Amino acid sequence: MKLNEESLTPLYQQLMEDIKIAIEEGKYKYEDKIPSEPELSESYSVSRITVRRAIDELCNEGYLIKKQGKGTYVNKPKLLRKIEQADDVQSFSAACRANGMKPGAKVIGIQKLPSRKDEQKFMHLDEGDSVLYLQRVLSANGEPIMLENNYFNYEKFHFLENEKLDKTSLFSLLREKYNIDPSSTKKCTLEIVRATSTNAKLLHVAVGEPLFFMTAYFTDASGTPLFIGRQYIVGSRYMFNI
Amino acid sequence: MKLNEESLTPLYQQLMEDIKIAIEEGKYKYEDKIPSEPELSESYSVSRITVRRAIDELCNEGYLIKKQGKGTYVNKPKLLRKIEQADDVQSFSAACRANGMKPGAKVIGIQKLPSRKDEQKFMHLDEGDSVLYLQRVLSANGEPIMLENNYFNYEKFHFLENEKLDKTSLFSLLREKYNIDPSSTKKCTLEIVRATSTNAKLLHVAVGEPLFFMTAYFTDASGTPLFIGRQYIVGSRYMFNI
Repeated sequence: MKLNEESLTPLYQQLMEDIKIAIEEGKYKYEDKIPSEPELSESYSVSRITVRRAIDELCNEGYLIKKQGKGTYVNKPKLLRKIEQADDVQSFSAACRANGMKPGAKVIGIQKLPSRKDEQKFMHLDEGDSVLYLQRVLSANGEPIMLENNYFNYEKFHFLENEKLDKTSLFSLLREKYNIDPSSTKKCTLEIVRATSTNAKLLHVAVGEPLFFMTAYFTDASGTPLFIGRQYIVGSRYMFNI
Repeated sequence: MKLNEESLTPLYQQLMEDIKIAIEEGKYKYEDKIPSEPELSESYSVSRITVRRAIDELCNEGYLIKKQGKGTYVNKPKLLRKIEQADDVQSFSAACRANGMKPGAKVIGIQKLPSRKDEQKFMHLDEGDSVLYLQRVLSANGEPIMLENNYFNYEKFHFLENEKLDKTSLFSLLREKYNIDPSSTKKCTLEIVRATSTNAKLLHVAVGEPLFFMTAYFTDASGTPLFIGRQYIVGSRYMFNI
C-alpha cells in the first residue's frame, strides 16, 4: 500500500481515509484488531508519528477505539440514518444567494493523482488511471465556510486544469460551459469530525473545532458518475435544512 | 419573560432557546447588541451565573459573539443549506433495524408545561395553552445515541401520560394505536452544538463533545402539525445518509 507524498492531502489524512475505506468495505470488521503502529508504519512506508496521528484522529471520530494494553480495535459502526433527497443538489453558491450572502472560492491546489480504490469503483476507472484533485476554500461574505475536496475522472475532466476556478461556481461552470449537471448524488453521508491542524488553518478555526464532514458521490440526473466530494464544513457557521 | 423552574430543561438551556428564537424571529438582528448580563438576569429573574452560562454556550454555538470591552452581539447567521426530504421520515427504531442494531428508549421525564411562542405558532395554540414535554434517551445496542426532546399539544396528546414509553417506538405507538402518522416535517434543521453538562451526563459523553442538534417540526402527511422535536445526537456514533 502506498500513500502519495506529492498530494495536497497530508499523509496522515490519506492514511485515515485508507483505513476508513477498509472499514467501510469490510476488510476490517467491528471488533477486529487493526495492525500495530510499527506494522502500519512499515506497510505504508510512513513514520510512526504519521501513523499515531492518523489513529488518534480516527479514535476521535469514533471509527477506532483503543483498549488499554491490548491494541486498537474497530469501533461499533455509526448508526446511519437515512434521509432521502428529493430535489436537485443545491450548490454552495445557490445556498449563499438564498441566504443573501456573497459566495467566494479560492483554489488551494489542483493536481493529477493516482486513483484510489473507492474512486476506481465509483467512476469505473482501472487501476493506474488518474484522478484530478481540486481543493478549494469556499466562503460566504468573505468568511471561510467549506473546504472542498473534489476528485474527478482525470481523462474526462482534465479541462478543469485550464479553467479559472477562483471566485467561480464549479456547478455553474460545469452546467453552463460543459453541459455537465451534477444534480444528484448516488450516496451522501454527513458526520461530525474535528478540524485537523491543516484544515483548521485553511478554514480559520481552532484545531479540534467540530466540522461537518460530507462525503458525496455526485452523478448527473441519469446516474452517470461525475466526481467524489469530501467536504469539511465549519459547524458554527453552517446549518443544514433537511 | 419567565422561564420555568419546574421544567426538566435547565434554566440556562431555556434561556438559550429563548434567545435563539428571538434571533430566528428577527427580534435580535445580526450585529445587534443583546442586553447585558445584569439586564437579562433581571428581565428573566435568573442568576447572573445562569445568564453567563447561556451566553457562553450561544457563543460556542456561533449564535452570539463577544466583543472585547463592548458587549455581546448577534453573530452572522449560519449559512443554511437546503436538502429536501423525499421520503417518509425514518424513525429511530427503523434506522436501528436497518443497521442491524437493537433500539432502546428510556424515559427521563414527561411533564405538562406552559407553551412557548414557537410552539404556539406551529401548533396553533393560544397563549396559556399547555404542551406535553417528553424527554427520552434513545439507544442502539444499549449505547445512548440520541436525547429526544419532544413537545406536543397537551390537549391532543395528553394520552401519552398513560402510555408506557420506555423501550417503545414513539412512531410505532402513534401509528398503530392512535392512527397518527408523523411522516413528514414542515421544517427540519441540522447543526452542530457542544454537549452541555446535563446532556453529556444523559448521553454518556464528555462535556463539550460535539453533537448533532436536529430541530424538527413534525406533521402528518397532510401537513397537520403534530409535535416539535429538539434532538441531541452523539456525533461520534451517528451518521446521516442524505
